[in-house]
Amino acid sequence: MPSTNLIFANQDAHRAWLASQAALPAGFRAGTARFEFTPVEAPKPARMTLTLIVLDKPTPDFAAMFTRNAFPGAPVIIGRKRLAEPALGAIIVNNKISNVCAPGGVETAERVCAETARHLGISPEQVLPSSTGVIGWALPADAMMAALPDAVAALSGDSILPAAEGIVTTDLYPKIRRASVGAGSIVGIAKGAGMIEPNMATMLVYILTDLAVPRDTLRAMLARAVDSSFNTISIDSDTSTSDTVALVSSGKVPCEPGQYAAFEAALAQVCRDLAEDVVRNGEGVRHVMRVIVKGASDLETARALGKAIVNAPLFKCAVAGNDPNVGRLVQAVGKHVGAHMPSLDVSRMSARMGGIEIFANGAFRLDPEKETALVAHLREAELYRSAPTADGVFAPPIHYPPHERSVEIEIDLASGGCECAVLGGDLTHEYVSENADYRS
Amino acid sequence: MPSTNLIFANQDAHRAWLASQAALPAGFRAGTARFEFTPVEAPKPARMTLTLIVLDKPTPDFAAMFTRNAFPGAPVIIGRKRLAEPALGAIIVNNKISNVCAPGGVETAERVCAETARHLGISPEQVLPSSTGVIGWALPADAMMAALPDAVAALSGDSILPAAEGIVTTDLYPKIRRASVGAGSIVGIAKGAGMIEPNMATMLVYILTDLAVPRDTLRAMLARAVDSSFNTISIDSDTSTSDTVALVSSGKVPCEPGQYAAFEAALAQVCRDLAEDVVRNGEGVRHVMRVIVKGASDLETARALGKAIVNAPLFKCAVAGNDPNVGRLVQAVGKHVGAHMPSLDVSRMSARMGGIEIFANGAFRLDPEKETALVAHLREAELYRSAPTADGVFAPPIHYPPHERSVEIEIDLASGGCECAVLGGDLTHEYVSENADYRS
Repeated sequence: MPSTNLIFANQDAHRAWLASQAALPAGFRAGTARFEFTPVEAPKPARMTLTLIVLDKPTPDFAAMFTRNAFPGAPVIIGRKRLAEPALGAIIVNNKISNVCAPGGVETAERVCAETARHLGISPEQVLPSSTGVIGWALPADAMMAALPDAVAALSGDSILPAAEGIVTTDLYPKIRRASVGAGSIVGIAKGAGMIEPNMATMLVYILTDLAVPRDTLRAMLARAVDSSFNTISIDSDTSTSDTVALVSSGKVPCEPGQYAAFEAALAQVCRDLAEDVVRNGEGVRHVMRVIVKGASDLETARALGKAIVNAPLFKCAVAGNDPNVGRLVQAVGKHVGAHMPSLDVSRMSARMGGIEIFANGAFRLDPEKETALVAHLREAELYRSAPTADGVFAPPIHYPPHERSVEIEIDLASGGCECAVLGGDLTHEYVSENADYRS
Repeated sequence: MPSTNLIFANQDAHRAWLASQAALPAGFRAGTARFEFTPVEAPKPARMTLTLIVLDKPTPDFAAMFTRNAFPGAPVIIGRKRLAEPALGAIIVNNKISNVCAPGGVETAERVCAETARHLGISPEQVLPSSTGVIGWALPADAMMAALPDAVAALSGDSILPAAEGIVTTDLYPKIRRASVGAGSIVGIAKGAGMIEPNMATMLVYILTDLAVPRDTLRAMLARAVDSSFNTISIDSDTSTSDTVALVSSGKVPCEPGQYAAFEAALAQVCRDLAEDVVRNGEGVRHVMRVIVKGASDLETARALGKAIVNAPLFKCAVAGNDPNVGRLVQAVGKHVGAHMPSLDVSRMSARMGGIEIFANGAFRLDPEKETALVAHLREAELYRSAPTADGVFAPPIHYPPHERSVEIEIDLASGGCECAVLGGDLTHEYVSENADYRS
């Protein structure tokens, strides 16, 4: 569940709320620079934003997790090495090109890190690079280095909002979540949108804190927080080659070991809120689905079944159409169980949607009254109505989240005490337009 | 590869070709009856077709394979029992409602079998039932039994085309494939369209032969043929609760053991052709993709990787848009390898699309000329252009397959001698409209 229950009437209201959440923790500054360039692979002008997050003083207390995709981007390859460095001083992020399997990609990323370090007076190994965007293209290193002075000049300790805006690609709006612990705070930003089924890590997420928590403790807490947040979401079942989540402490505010539990709980909440933000703003998502699988023998069984449901294309389409076609829900469960856990006894399974029992004792429990109530539940969870254009291209008509409601699905396996909530979205014309109609 | 390379200018040409393939093998008759009824779950009129396939004399020589979905339909539950019966005399198929997890579903299906048997003068256990359509609704048993005499009266030994038309749901056209072996023949029909990723069985497929091949041999041959045909396709990764493939011999034409190899090769070809027909007419499919994974250590590795590619939503969308976004292809490979075969050495992997090398030695091989050639390859494989309507609903403008070309993708893992070809389709507005726009 999100820690909030927000409702926004328009984009201005959403931006005002984002601004209210955006104060940087002590010890950090952020700045961005935007520029035009021409990719060599498909020569037409493109725009890129450089986002720089800088610590007042390099810190030993940082953590990061990365994608399990077998073709990680160059920044992920470098980032894994940075984990062994004694300190982190800055993060440099670019959008538009993800620098994945591009010839010479690692060398190019290291050049950008070195130039960033030179401007900041730190060493290249203290810079963590991140890239997101088209897979396969090469970074425009010269144009990036030419834009760096602008990003450095824009550095400010006031707000993380410019950085939250700088890292996005097809996101409709920036994402910021915060929590307080004693005198300190935790502030996170995320970009998501598409190619989202994180596996042991996630899209691009940067979480900053001024609370002084040591490196090893930070890393253990981040692993647990990611496992119960970003690792339980899927927009389209595709695992990005660039997934990165980084957590950095400036150490400006003391944090006693007695406060660690509160810190970890706050961190987990920030991660869960950002994960839900990422799903709610997933490419083409018009309904967020929250699938709670309970009564499972273990957490992994529950999580895998939840993911099988939120990734089942026919059920996703039914949700998009406000159609309580629960036959497709049971099909998705049956496919997963038949293929991956054939020994599971499904005869005791029951299922609910919007709190209404739809399946029990091996048979559906459907009638016209339930159907009407289920349609109402689906309509209430819809974020916006489709608005087709004359050329058949669908684009979301809003650039803010109007509410935080979800399609609530509960599967009870009645075969154990474990539970997992998995978030996903529907499959819509807006998703297809975003990913098929931009060229042809 | 299909055994044919057909090109059809219009629906009439396609129908003429179907008619030329439709002669029933000796010893079989087929007939259909269409009627209106009102489902109890969502009271508005619907239409159902009953399709009856009858042997002149019940035969011991039949085989069938069924879905691995953990919630199989009532006909699948009954069908598994029928495999132990000494003989099969008829197959009764209905569309519109799949009879899956409906209260009393097995009893209803048995009642329909008994009434069919009574009309034909055989025993109920000699009747194999099949149902396809909405999951969760109950069969209209009384209306079906009232329509049975019409289906019996329509029985004819001429053509399987009425049966091929009778079993469809959202299919755009009927599917018939045939092969000859000596003086006998093998004729198969299929319905497919959506919820198609068969697992050890498939949608509804009925293959009839007059060649006298004994039961055990038939069953072994069918298992092998299905494994290399229907088990290598996926339209939307959803495994139906009703998948059934049945193979029945009337035994009218002698088949010596020396001819078995020829029979099995012909059977495999009919299965492969039907499987490709099912993909080509998959819901919303505008491009068929053929992914050949070679150089694999074993068949299952190759098949699983091929399926991961044809099921990757972002890559499917790119293909729909005639966009050679090969970064998404490599992402799909990397996701699967990272999650399921992390020990595989991907550094030697190479990839081709339309015969053009796009990836080798860990890096992309892209340039503007290749991009132009890849776009041409995608356009040539397109079955039709999207035609949006004013209300945003997309419907395929054709009811025949204009050609048998595919998007040709080759992944060479260079780590073994095994190979598998997997067929799939793109992800289109037509798929979303078929599955989300029919109500709201």
